[in-house]
Amino acid sequence: MLYGRVVGTIWATRKDEKLEGLSFRIVEKLGFDGAASGSHVVAIDTVSAGVGEIVLVAQGSSARQTAETKDRPVDAVIMAIVDNHELNDAGAPR
Amino acid sequence: MLYGRVVGTIWATRKDEKLEGLSFRIVEKLGFDGAASGSHVVAIDTVSAGVGEIVLVAQGSSARQTAETKDRPVDAVIMAIVDNHELNDAGAPR
Amino acid sequence: MLYGRVVGTIWATRKDEKLEGLSFRIVEKLGFDGAASGSHVVAIDTVSAGVGEIVLVAQGSSARQTAETKDRPVDAVIMAIVDNHELNDAGAPR
Amino acid sequence: MLYGRVVGTIWATRKDEKLEGLSFRIVEKLGFDGAASGSHVVAIDTVSAGVGEIVLVAQGSSARQTAETKDRPVDAVIMAIVDNHELNDAGAPR
Amino acid sequence: MLYGRVVGTIWATRKDEKLEGLSFRIVEKLGFDGAASGSHVVAIDTVSAGVGEIVLVAQGSSARQTAETKDRPVDAVIMAIVDNHELNDAGAPR
Repeated sequence: MLYGRVVGTIWATRKDEKLEGLSFRIVEKLGFDGAASGSHVVAIDTVSAGVGEIVLVAQGSSARQTAETKDRPVDAVIMAIVDNHELNDAGAPR
Repeated sequence: MLYGRVVGTIWATRKDEKLEGLSFRIVEKLGFDGAASGSHVVAIDTVSAGVGEIVLVAQGSSARQTAETKDRPVDAVIMAIVDNHELNDAGAPR
Repeated sequence: MLYGRVVGTIWATRKDEKLEGLSFRIVEKLGFDGAASGSHVVAIDTVSAGVGEIVLVAQGSSARQTAETKDRPVDAVIMAIVDNHELNDAGAPR
Repeated sequence: MLYGRVVGTIWATRKDEKLEGLSFRIVEKLGFDGAASGSHVVAIDTVSAGVGEIVLVAQGSSARQTAETKDRPVDAVIMAIVDNHELNDAGAPR
Repeated sequence: MLYGRVVGTIWATRKDEKLEGLSFRIVEKLGFDGAASGSHVVAIDTVSAGVGEIVLVAQGSSARQTAETKDRPVDAVIMAIVDNHELNDAGAPR
């Protein structure tokens, strides 16, 4: 999954009929130090993620495994809002 | 989904028979500041997007989830025409 | 889809039994100005594309949606030979 | 598959209901010399991999082929813990 | 498909039960001039490819279309051993 922050919203009224009712969010990929990457993906929001929240995004066919996105032409979905993370970068290289 | 602008059209008469009737469009990826990226993808148009319009493109197996593209050998589809977007890049890094 | 030119052929006699009868072509990605990218993909040819021809390549599970490639372990297929393309790069950025 | 080291954990309580019970791990891609790449992926752990362990990660729809991840909206899974590897980089180029 | 050379092997005893009996190989991507890329992928070997051999690798869901890999959590498979290739880079750009 991709780790990122919700930074915006997209509106589209002319679209495939299967997309009715879905919300398009702009997610910026983040480093685990919180650094913005400047790289974005547009994803469907199924967990009511607000702008500024840190989220996980599933891509590809996996993006269609939620109740809201099943069989729809979408390739990225926000499926979790991150509470916290812990990075242990200590292990010596093999 | 990929965010981009329709910048051209491709014609192909010798092709897999499942491709009859589909329109091939050239889409250039854009930044959310509207900056052209110089990077392109060829996508099927199912929403009558005209040249110059801003669109969303779904890729991979998700590109085959529209009525027009189901079971066809295509890996990118224009599934929405963008009306507007809002970018709120304010949130402080975690 | 990827836009490229057929630049070569690969022969392989020891292979998965489902690959019998398929032709492996080397395709070089092109810019729409015709510039060679130096980046290549190996794809199955189902449209009798000759060396030098400009083609479209579908990747991933979409590469298995032709009669010849169905259920086979291949992830790229040449599914169209390009006749012509038109690039209208005029639209002002949003 | 991707070769990497488990370097952290992510907690998320607000998430798609199909994600209940799954553990999110942060995996850093490694070179085969053990060099850290600085590039990370978030993956579901189905093999009780601890922080510091070297693992393999399957991505895309293949990430949903374990008993724990079947039909769930996840696109990366840790499916093996690496014991050892051998690199024979001797062969002369063709 | 990806074009590369088998350069090593990975051993893993703690793994998803569906992976029993599969061999993990390290494949280095090659240019068609035989130049090593320094970029590697871990793939399942279903064609008894030895170290040093030039092979083709199918990725994504296509990697699960062999008898050995069907329904298993693997995203790359060596499905052919290359005998030879011919590169005709002569065609003038369109």
